Amino acid sequence: MPASQRYKLTLAYRGTNYHGWQSQSVTENYKEEVPEGHGIPTIQETLSRAVESVVRHPVKIVGSSRTDAGVHAKGQIAHFDTEAIQIPRDGLRRAINAALPTDITVRLLDAVDESFDAITSTASKRYQYAIWNQPDRPTFFPDLAWHRWQPLDHAAMRQAAQKLIGEHDFASFARPGHGRENTIRTVLSCDVSFRPPLLVVGIEGTGFLWNMVRIIVGTLVEVGLGRHTPADIDTMLAARDRQAAGPTAPAHGLYLQWIKTR
Amino acid sequence: MPASQRYKLTLAYRGTNYHGWQSQSVTENYKEEVPEGHGIPTIQETLSRAVESVVRHPVKIVGSSRTDAGVHAKGQIAHFDTEAIQIPRDGLRRAINAALPTDITVRLLDAVDESFDAITSTASKRYQYAIWNQPDRPTFFPDLAWHRWQPLDHAAMRQAAQKLIGEHDFASFARPGHGRENTIRTVLSCDVSFRPPLLVVGIEGTGFLWNMVRIIVGTLVEVGLGRHTPADIDTMLAARDRQAAGPTAPAHGLYLQWIKTR
Repeated sequence: MPASQRYKLTLAYRGTNYHGWQSQSVTENYKEEVPEGHGIPTIQETLSRAVESVVRHPVKIVGSSRTDAGVHAKGQIAHFDTEAIQIPRDGLRRAINAALPTDITVRLLDAVDESFDAITSTASKRYQYAIWNQPDRPTFFPDLAWHRWQPLDHAAMRQAAQKLIGEHDFASFARPGHGRENTIRTVLSCDVSFRPPLLVVGIEGTGFLWNMVRIIVGTLVEVGLGRHTPADIDTMLAARDRQAAGPTAPAHGLYLQWIKTR
Repeated sequence: MPASQRYKLTLAYRGTNYHGWQSQSVTENYKEEVPEGHGIPTIQETLSRAVESVVRHPVKIVGSSRTDAGVHAKGQIAHFDTEAIQIPRDGLRRAINAALPTDITVRLLDAVDESFDAITSTASKRYQYAIWNQPDRPTFFPDLAWHRWQPLDHAAMRQAAQKLIGEHDFASFARPGHGRENTIRTVLSCDVSFRPPLLVVGIEGTGFLWNMVRIIVGTLVEVGLGRHTPADIDTMLAARDRQAAGPTAPAHGLYLQWIKTR
């Protein structure tokens, strides 16, 4: 029996042309809301094909985060096992990148112990959400930031962001059908920075509910527009009702920035 | 007879999805090198349709610079005449933008005198060329910069750039078939800046030959790789032969930055 080696991948990708990390398995009730990909590839499939073309045997790629269609990553984490351990490590990374389309890049490839698992070894994750906040639209980056032309009250958004930090029941900030019984999550940091014209919301947490970051951003923008006050965040959290929070920001502004693993 | 008003447009666009500013009229000999658009729209056509949908009569849009397929613009200049002078100026700009796809934006719209002409009123132009200079490819910007992973000698590139400034015969730096008898042009500035990972070559001149900026950039990169010395630029200029200079850098790194008009 050949020896096997586990590799940890750190990945960047532009989600624009993909149907998310992998096809979502959804509950029967919500199937119609998450249409099938109609032939649009997933990141996981595309990556599997590239790795298999290099190692010459079927592989199973396990990703830490199942990013939705259109969502980008600067530091997704994944792992796979291979029997082709004679390939030098940096040669392997370069060979996989050469087999990938240019909008998916293996940034790092590390040989790891079999105890490492992209899902169970995850300690925390940080997302960034990019808002193009000026009257003119993002001509060169239409799929890389959400265009909001109205002036936003950054101070109010920062105050509201502070209220989300800590352990809370985030039921109001989860898309129905998420299938999780426990909606209590811990947000470790939530900040709002502005380098004109880009306004960036950063959120770190130990785990997130479905669409949680996008609903938080949609709600913070409502605060920035003066439609809600920072104090309203407390009421929204207490309501435990999706209707209480703001709209879901679109997928194309969202980046999985990094994942801390144990 | 209705009164007519001339408008000057300052335009930004991402050239990726367009067959250049307009279909190139080429000499018979070179026709096969410049294939027809096969239904891919030009910037000029797309802009004309958007303006016509607002002013409700046919317009002729005249552009200052006929950018090639894949080339971007931050400050292209164009003009058109309209009889629909009752539309308020900022309303007109916003209405045209609303009718345009998001990868073309009218940044400024100014009412001008009929003596203004986008072609003949041009005093000088500045181009920028973006090189993504790090081992990892530009995952998020594959169509917005040229990826050169090798380390480049910036000091040597700057020295070579200096040698291009001034009035020279740029015949070695023009694509054959340009159809211009006089190949003497004046480069007002040529600089190389590096904010990792982006290396940007900026070139201002009163006029440029076909592919001149891209051949200059291709040649400067050869200098950066140590394949040519800065002193070789003098020899290349003197040769008056396209074979003497370096390769043509690809279109997708090139930006028409601004145009000064009289």
